[in-house]
Amino acid sequence: MVHTHRVVLGEITRQLGGELIGDAQTEVDHLGPLEGATPSTLTFFSNPRLHAQLQTSQAGCVILAPESKDMALACSARIVTPNPYLYFARLTQWWADRVRPPVVPGVHPTAVVAPTANIAPTACVGALAVIEAGACLADGAVVGAQCFIGEQAVVGQGTRLAPRVTLGAGCVLGARGLVHSGAVIGADGFGFAHDAQSGWEKIEQFGGVCVGNDVEIGANTCIDRGALGDTVIEDGVKLDNQIQIGHNVRIGAHSALAGCVGVAGSAVIGRHCTVGGAGMVLGHLTLADHVHISAASVVTRSILKPGHYSGVFPIDENAAWEKNAATLRQLHSLRERLRAAEKRLLELTPPTDPSLPSSS
Amino acid sequence: MVHTHRVVLGEITRQLGGELIGDAQTEVDHLGPLEGATPSTLTFFSNPRLHAQLQTSQAGCVILAPESKDMALACSARIVTPNPYLYFARLTQWWADRVRPPVVPGVHPTAVVAPTANIAPTACVGALAVIEAGACLADGAVVGAQCFIGEQAVVGQGTRLAPRVTLGAGCVLGARGLVHSGAVIGADGFGFAHDAQSGWEKIEQFGGVCVGNDVEIGANTCIDRGALGDTVIEDGVKLDNQIQIGHNVRIGAHSALAGCVGVAGSAVIGRHCTVGGAGMVLGHLTLADHVHISAASVVTRSILKPGHYSGVFPIDENAAWEKNAATLRQLHSLRERLRAAEKRLLELTPPTDPSLPSSS
Amino acid sequence: MVHTHRVVLGEITRQLGGELIGDAQTEVDHLGPLEGATPSTLTFFSNPRLHAQLQTSQAGCVILAPESKDMALACSARIVTPNPYLYFARLTQWWADRVRPPVVPGVHPTAVVAPTANIAPTACVGALAVIEAGACLADGAVVGAQCFIGEQAVVGQGTRLAPRVTLGAGCVLGARGLVHSGAVIGADGFGFAHDAQSGWEKIEQFGGVCVGNDVEIGANTCIDRGALGDTVIEDGVKLDNQIQIGHNVRIGAHSALAGCVGVAGSAVIGRHCTVGGAGMVLGHLTLADHVHISAASVVTRSILKPGHYSGVFPIDENAAWEKNAATLRQLHSLRERLRAAEKRLLELTPPTDPSLPSSS
Repeated sequence: MVHTHRVVLGEITRQLGGELIGDAQTEVDHLGPLEGATPSTLTFFSNPRLHAQLQTSQAGCVILAPESKDMALACSARIVTPNPYLYFARLTQWWADRVRPPVVPGVHPTAVVAPTANIAPTACVGALAVIEAGACLADGAVVGAQCFIGEQAVVGQGTRLAPRVTLGAGCVLGARGLVHSGAVIGADGFGFAHDAQSGWEKIEQFGGVCVGNDVEIGANTCIDRGALGDTVIEDGVKLDNQIQIGHNVRIGAHSALAGCVGVAGSAVIGRHCTVGGAGMVLGHLTLADHVHISAASVVTRSILKPGHYSGVFPIDENAAWEKNAATLRQLHSLRERLRAAEKRLLELTPPTDPSLPSSS
Repeated sequence: MVHTHRVVLGEITRQLGGELIGDAQTEVDHLGPLEGATPSTLTFFSNPRLHAQLQTSQAGCVILAPESKDMALACSARIVTPNPYLYFARLTQWWADRVRPPVVPGVHPTAVVAPTANIAPTACVGALAVIEAGACLADGAVVGAQCFIGEQAVVGQGTRLAPRVTLGAGCVLGARGLVHSGAVIGADGFGFAHDAQSGWEKIEQFGGVCVGNDVEIGANTCIDRGALGDTVIEDGVKLDNQIQIGHNVRIGAHSALAGCVGVAGSAVIGRHCTVGGAGMVLGHLTLADHVHISAASVVTRSILKPGHYSGVFPIDENAAWEKNAATLRQLHSLRERLRAAEKRLLELTPPTDPSLPSSS
Repeated sequence: MVHTHRVVLGEITRQLGGELIGDAQTEVDHLGPLEGATPSTLTFFSNPRLHAQLQTSQAGCVILAPESKDMALACSARIVTPNPYLYFARLTQWWADRVRPPVVPGVHPTAVVAPTANIAPTACVGALAVIEAGACLADGAVVGAQCFIGEQAVVGQGTRLAPRVTLGAGCVLGARGLVHSGAVIGADGFGFAHDAQSGWEKIEQFGGVCVGNDVEIGANTCIDRGALGDTVIEDGVKLDNQIQIGHNVRIGAHSALAGCVGVAGSAVIGRHCTVGGAGMVLGHLTLADHVHISAASVVTRSILKPGHYSGVFPIDENAAWEKNAATLRQLHSLRERLRAAEKRLLELTPPTDPSLPSSS
């Protein structure tokens, strides 16, 4: 808990809205989960399964929806708002602005910056970062310690790179983005032509990576540069950790991909899509807008209709799984046997008049 | 083979125990597998499938269990111990202490260390590392070249970080740990509230990561900081490479996760669990102690009973797989058809008295 | 598009061969996809699905096979060659040599280089790289900014490391290789012996990593060092991003592994194999030469026959998947029920003479 900050509730609702029930001078000093909340905790209620906790909670203040507003009577105060979780998200941002050390503009003396790099006076470059020729850091951009910014790469306005991020030559990040440590943006796409004699011949990757505004990119996530054109991540996309985005992929605005997802080359994912953790999208496929893929599911064909799609082997006790998995390898022949049995049954019992009830 | 070291067997058993059969002055100079062992090799036997190799091996010395001690008659000597693999593990540690260059305490002159960082005189900081304000390195801690240690982060006693590790602000590593290159501890968890207008609103992540003693963390593995509370990795946990641990996860003591595993946010894994490579545990689930998940299996529900669980599609020749996979999409209707067939069969052959043998 | 370069077609065919149909003085200035090609684009045709685009394309020049040479009549010129994709691959390499800034030999003044490191005068070491004692960089080797090269490690002739690569102590890269950012070569393998008292006892990893010639290693990919012997990557292997290669694995020459693949310890993959994205190979298994594993398939047994193997749960609408997955957990008992039904049917309809047609 390094984010303690003393504040009265009235100041919060003045800034973020919501209806305050209780004393505006009530003071809280940290954000916390409902479970374990104390009179100095500001918390929220959005998960119906925590209903019992809400009823007995002695939190300083709980953010809740109108329909729950009479359920938190042991709390000192309540903030009522239609979407408590969203309100809480905005509150965390407001809170972070107050408790986190401000960014100090300037280039750390140990950073290695090419003379032709173009760094806004309000930008910040951390210790031991490398900024190559012609790279551009816009107003308020933050490049963390030990980052690498390649030639002609661009970091948009207010975009922050955590330590040890790699942004390859010519790659462009939009405004208000956030990139976590270990991310690699702009490595070569995986492109080879096969030659019977020499094996694999590399196809040099000349494209870039173009990332829109308000994009978050997780730790150790990779986004490859395009082969000829660019790999494109549209505005508002959120990528978790350990994700692999192949060359020439396009991810539509406001889509969110959870950890360990892979998107193979030239796949196109629509807007407002979600892919659960470790989901995989094979190459050259298209996903329509508003397609939701369950965790660990493998997209092997284009999906042109919005909806929720899944494909994962159900987990079971190992002994049961072994039997079922072994049988699965005979599934097609089981179907054939069932067909044969049905046919023989039909021969034994010719169909009755379908207008009669079958249970006769 | 960079670990050559001349040693007599008597010195080894004096230090590590075991019953030596053979001349205590027998000299070996390296550790090696049973296959290909020579008179200067010190090896072990624990895999029954290597029984034939054991019988003809001319190793300098083989570590083996009492029940196998008469099977290695061509070896110069034998060390008898109840658990040869465990003995060999301890021997590798003993050996490493002798063949590896000792850590030289001190801060490399190219490291960038904040004046308020608290670095024990016996700690070691490598070239071009960055240590931020208030960070603490305990006795014998080793921070490799090009590591990043954030503000107020703690590296426990004797814990070693390979080059290029990121330890985020406020994150804590216990004693005697080992973290491999590229690991990122303390990136933001993946938390957003959805807003129909603006898309995803970030939930700032205020928690930390708390790692116990004797924990190993693999290369390019990520452990996210908690949203409000901490992400917790208990004592003795072993994490392989390329693992993703989401925010607010708790992994119980002495559990081991193989490469490419993903554990989504708020999941709780018990003590003494194992997860095979690329296994996935979805968010908010609980695994009891002593639960073992097979490689590539996806845990989609809490598992409250110790045991071994699996769920992976069996691999097959592609043509067979295609047929079976296509049929799998009709499995539920096949079951319905089987039910109908059973019912019609029953109509044709009314059940006989169950006390009579069915084969009558 | 940062790769513009003005060139006449005659120069290309003089260097790379192929039959030029059209004016050798025709000038193009960039490589591009068939779709959207303009009179200054040099493109290729190898995907039959783009046939319509080919017929109307006004590209400056299209590279195509003899059988397609009369289909691109609106293009200014054509280069005819038996394998257009392979020709294009070589053209990208030829083009890259002309448009990319040449490597300037020398060691950046901010690099930290041990006095005993052996760096060829034609090699290049980037800013803030660390080169440890006894490491060897051969002629024309390129070590990017912020790379770490451990003691006694070797970078072969002409091999290039992008920024922020880790090459562990004693690990060896062959000639003409390419390693992308964030790759970690030579972290410890994941080896522990289990002790009922103390939990997991580390087995120190003394082996190295030995990488052949012409190998490409993707961003954030990990190759662990061997326990006693080496992990071996043979000549011409191509590894995409986010791959995990366990200790003592051997990957045969000219095999290619797509993104997110995992290969567990001691597995042996043959020559000319391919593993699709997120495919997993479990430990100690063997794959013969010319084995091809589909994306996301899990190899749970050795495969000794060349061929194409798959095992992935088919994706479906979530509601359908739920039904089928639930039924799958009863599959073995369904088979038993089908057997019972077949048996009862047989009792009702004794088999007819098999020499007669069954449809009688």
